[in-house]
Amino acid sequence: MNKITISVPSSVANVSCGFDVLGFCLEKPCDEMTVEIKKKQGVDIQIINEKSIPTNPKDNVCGAVAFAMIKKLNFKYGFKIKIIKNIKPGSGIGSSAASAAGTAFAINKLTGNIFSKLDLVKYAMYGEEIASGAKHADNLSPVIFGGFTLVRSLKPLDIIPLPSLKELYVIITHPLIELKTKDARLIIDKKINLEKAIQQWGNLAGFIASLYTKNYELMSKTIEDVIIEPQRLKLIPNYREIVDSVSKYTLGSGISGAGPSIFSICKGEHNSELVLDKIREITDKKSIEYNLILSNINTEGIKIIN
Amino acid sequence: MNKITISVPSSVANVSCGFDVLGFCLEKPCDEMTVEIKKKQGVDIQIINEKSIPTNPKDNVCGAVAFAMIKKLNFKYGFKIKIIKNIKPGSGIGSSAASAAGTAFAINKLTGNIFSKLDLVKYAMYGEEIASGAKHADNLSPVIFGGFTLVRSLKPLDIIPLPSLKELYVIITHPLIELKTKDARLIIDKKINLEKAIQQWGNLAGFIASLYTKNYELMSKTIEDVIIEPQRLKLIPNYREIVDSVSKYTLGSGISGAGPSIFSICKGEHNSELVLDKIREITDKKSIEYNLILSNINTEGIKIIN
Repeated sequence: MNKITISVPSSVANVSCGFDVLGFCLEKPCDEMTVEIKKKQGVDIQIINEKSIPTNPKDNVCGAVAFAMIKKLNFKYGFKIKIIKNIKPGSGIGSSAASAAGTAFAINKLTGNIFSKLDLVKYAMYGEEIASGAKHADNLSPVIFGGFTLVRSLKPLDIIPLPSLKELYVIITHPLIELKTKDARLIIDKKINLEKAIQQWGNLAGFIASLYTKNYELMSKTIEDVIIEPQRLKLIPNYREIVDSVSKYTLGSGISGAGPSIFSICKGEHNSELVLDKIREITDKKSIEYNLILSNINTEGIKIIN
Repeated sequence: MNKITISVPSSVANVSCGFDVLGFCLEKPCDEMTVEIKKKQGVDIQIINEKSIPTNPKDNVCGAVAFAMIKKLNFKYGFKIKIIKNIKPGSGIGSSAASAAGTAFAINKLTGNIFSKLDLVKYAMYGEEIASGAKHADNLSPVIFGGFTLVRSLKPLDIIPLPSLKELYVIITHPLIELKTKDARLIIDKKINLEKAIQQWGNLAGFIASLYTKNYELMSKTIEDVIIEPQRLKLIPNYREIVDSVSKYTLGSGISGAGPSIFSICKGEHNSELVLDKIREITDKKSIEYNLILSNINTEGIKIIN
């Protein structure tokens, strides 16, 4: 095999109570990536339908991942990477994570499949570093492992796959403004109140318990961020209006990753369609354009197309 | 029924990664409490084999709980409370929590059993307030619910019973110095680093996952406190020496509650006996006296004796 085409999914990180550690994988939108071995050294990157991404491999998420793996493998050829970019950069649903994870996944398949999923996250983190200045893994882990994941520790990297509940549906409300993760991280206080931290870890622990016990009532109480979201809300247009209008029908809403997208988790398809309609009613009246997406949880992660 | 005798267990709060939210119940030591309805109003308190506890009901943990329940119930009689105190005050294994929880449990049984377990924790919190100046519930919850518990939220109070693993054994290493919870709380910084908080909530989330999946390897990685314990270690004599000497045989050790007791969690009875012996070898050589206790997890909580 010297060429592979894969579907690489978007993802939601943080999930309100789990800043930098919790995430889940979406069924859609997905990027389509084709990675091919080429005889010459180096990495060629081509990106379809998105002009904002640098294609010089040294400045590119995929390039950083590919170079790290080429070095580790002592690989004497190069790669051609083509991405049909459906996950908008700066949307907050893991666009860079998809490119990074997809690159790691594809190169592994093309070079003998010797790396573990944990290894793939490690290589993909070089891409996240290019994109946001920080080697975070909370979007990468669900893309590579599927479903819900916990990044228990970064040093050493330790990822815990969590149960995925099939009854869960997610609405992504994406205002078409770009918000760089780097900028959204900059506004966060580096010191926090112990009291708030206790509230936060109580909620995260409760969220984890709710996944194992399928306790949706508990889950709905835990999707709350008392530390980061209050600082970032000002970056998200119409946040309160949107979230409050659907709170009766959702288990919870919050900022997806660093924003500007909002995620809303629902139990059951009917509820999720209702929420989609209600949000559309609001966003249709706004001057900002919005992309609305309804997806279920992707338990598999990256899929091989060809 | 106008008299009840119960066995009220000790407990370990915090469990390193879960400051103020996590706790578990021990099989021993236990206080024996007898609570009896008396014709006259007021609360009489008698404490056997422990002179340091105030018996004036206004200054006493049990008194605070009893008065709150008497008021709520509009109860026209009073109570006589007798405690055989086997859980040493100021030991860090929930001595005040036992008195408070036992009082709430017993009074409920004597007055028609109308309160839920959550209600009992709420009333018992009046006792914890007397003892430590803060209405915490991390020792009370495991005593009343049994096993491992999560205090997801204090306002509103929300307690999540967690799975209890029968293979777990606990060694309590109690140096016979008194450390007031109030004092141990005073030395803690009220502001913490976000980065440390992320480490901490990653570990707590991992610990919760380990309980549901019986993943002892994961559990052993998560029993770590990067925030509170480093500040409190200086209060615990010979902490490092004791913990390091047994780390090969335990899943983890840490400060029990606010200390000065150390808890060590082991998988299996054999390991736990080994750990007990190793710790005894060290403590036997010290000038401070130590109480060593080996216990399994108490999944039931308070037991009725008579």
